Amino acid sequence: MKGIILGIAPQAVLVDLMHEVPPHDVRAGALLLRSAVPYFPSGTIHIAIVDPGVGTGRRALLVETRNAFFLAPDNGLVSLAVPARDLVCVRDVSRSPYRRRTVSRTFHGRDVFAPVAGRLAAGVPPARLGRPTRSMLRLRVPAVRRAGRQLIGQVLWSDRFGNLITNVGRTDLTAAGAFRGRGVSVTIGDHVLRLCDAYAGVPAGRAVALVNSADLLEIAVNQRSAATILGAGRGTRVTIRPR
Amino acid sequence: MKGIILGIAPQAVLVDLMHEVPPHDVRAGALLLRSAVPYFPSGTIHIAIVDPGVGTGRRALLVETRNAFFLAPDNGLVSLAVPARDLVCVRDVSRSPYRRRTVSRTFHGRDVFAPVAGRLAAGVPPARLGRPTRSMLRLRVPAVRRAGRQLIGQVLWSDRFGNLITNVGRTDLTAAGAFRGRGVSVTIGDHVLRLCDAYAGVPAGRAVALVNSADLLEIAVNQRSAATILGAGRGTRVTIRPR
Amino acid sequence: MKGIILGIAPQAVLVDLMHEVPPHDVRAGALLLRSAVPYFPSGTIHIAIVDPGVGTGRRALLVETRNAFFLAPDNGLVSLAVPARDLVCVRDVSRSPYRRRTVSRTFHGRDVFAPVAGRLAAGVPPARLGRPTRSMLRLRVPAVRRAGRQLIGQVLWSDRFGNLITNVGRTDLTAAGAFRGRGVSVTIGDHVLRLCDAYAGVPAGRAVALVNSADLLEIAVNQRSAATILGAGRGTRVTIRPR
Repeated sequence: MKGIILGIAPQAVLVDLMHEVPPHDVRAGALLLRSAVPYFPSGTIHIAIVDPGVGTGRRALLVETRNAFFLAPDNGLVSLAVPARDLVCVRDVSRSPYRRRTVSRTFHGRDVFAPVAGRLAAGVPPARLGRPTRSMLRLRVPAVRRAGRQLIGQVLWSDRFGNLITNVGRTDLTAAGAFRGRGVSVTIGDHVLRLCDAYAGVPAGRAVALVNSADLLEIAVNQRSAATILGAGRGTRVTIRPR
Repeated sequence: MKGIILGIAPQAVLVDLMHEVPPHDVRAGALLLRSAVPYFPSGTIHIAIVDPGVGTGRRALLVETRNAFFLAPDNGLVSLAVPARDLVCVRDVSRSPYRRRTVSRTFHGRDVFAPVAGRLAAGVPPARLGRPTRSMLRLRVPAVRRAGRQLIGQVLWSDRFGNLITNVGRTDLTAAGAFRGRGVSVTIGDHVLRLCDAYAGVPAGRAVALVNSADLLEIAVNQRSAATILGAGRGTRVTIRPR
Repeated sequence: MKGIILGIAPQAVLVDLMHEVPPHDVRAGALLLRSAVPYFPSGTIHIAIVDPGVGTGRRALLVETRNAFFLAPDNGLVSLAVPARDLVCVRDVSRSPYRRRTVSRTFHGRDVFAPVAGRLAAGVPPARLGRPTRSMLRLRVPAVRRAGRQLIGQVLWSDRFGNLITNVGRTDLTAAGAFRGRGVSVTIGDHVLRLCDAYAGVPAGRAVALVNSADLLEIAVNQRSAATILGAGRGTRVTIRPR
């Protein structure tokens, strides 16, 4: 992919962003993308490929927003990073005139996304890269449930440190009283945790709950892997209760 | 290595390509290199180092082809990527005047390959980097065997997804009747598979055989690791039979 | 981080250097940094973040030396790469006017280090990035002990190949007689090894001791993982005896 892009747009600045998405995990990729995209300069072309459906009928999209471009399979991967209000145009580039002549069934990154991205970086107008389409698949992150005075959330994914990222947002926690009075307790498996400010708010090897840099509740073990030590991962239930 | 190259050739564009080669596996590196090289712009300098023989008598080569340059140990690593008809010149840079004054016994990437690559990128003519040599070691990929109407191949390596890449090419499959009539069955261990078009040609968790983006027979498990689930890896036998 | 830096300093050349530091291992990061820094061009800005104390009171530093700049948490991470004689100035950038308005408790790379690094790359003078401070935390690598004619060292960390890097330097080995007469034996667990010149100085699968490219005693298994095969890692004792 990099060779193809640089062959078409030698001045392009390539940035490796997130090769640590768990294989095939579209939702983890979508969440990571959402957390990184706001920090890139206006006009950035984001190529995002977690693509278990490659070679099937799923479409290849070019998504234009007010600030950026996205090239990705139509499986929801970019949907969390693109609020509807910022959307300018979605194009289907599956059969772009700029795709490679022979398109493999397993590597559309090389055969479709890279040549289209290269043209875009080289200044070819989006309108020539593919036809507008009205729809794109949108992922839904599982909602936090309310049960009386409790919140019930879940682990969305675990990062390379083994930190467990949940679907519970800072605003959910605020509404539950986390930042006033006696605060809340966070329960995962047999562990009942308080919210801390930092990983090192507990001794090394101890579990900690905190609000992370994407404003999500995260459960970690200081200097260790929470995924391993707590035996938790995608889907594990997390309960928040007033203390 | 990157620091040394940029110190000599500040305008060089560095591209990280394949840090996922299994450690010490020269053949996997050679196959990956072969699959990537055709997509890079003319004049690219490929630095390829999978080098279990570092510090021994094995030579360091600069290989010039019609389209590209390669810096690599003389262990066959670049041989699959360089067809004889494209070869322009092979040079021995083991004792290049541009190597670092002190050459360690464990890191020729830093001490030999990077400084030579930097000079080449900065415009020093190849002739000043090392003397021509007539030979380079060539790897031989194990041949596919024919046994009556069967083909017997093997797994060459497994990639980071756990997909199993074999030595059976698209042309082998065509000759065996894969793309006409009732097609072929592909046997690995206890599994008998049909050829599919895409990973998602079978349900998640099921094994699938397909022709991959390098035109090789690949055995995968949709959204899982075939290496783990099938207990297969380098050397595992694969049999193709008419159905 | 990359998005923020490129947004501020579009001409910056970003180099990914060492994403393979074991999580939370400040000492391994410090040793790797020390081994890489001398090979980078003068004026390089090194951003180094292994930061278990993020979000606590630990400071964020900008360290200026005669050849380079370092942005890192004040946990010793850069201390091995910066000899006292090269130090020009240490600044506390924890509350730099250029940090992001909202600073998270878990990702100072994005919120403090990247924006400050971007300004520095864009030409903002260091004096405007943070106030001078007199101290920085210095790591101490465990010393090699002498016991009669023996040296007793230890494994500092194991790299991604499973090679075991020790605290025993070339000069220690020279003093112990490694390079004259009958040389020395190196003992780790039940294994007694001779010093070799290269990994391939022993057959594949056999353990070998050598002086690596950072002039440290390293114990490896040719084409395998010494960490796994010898069951050794950080802290494992290594003894050097005259033969």
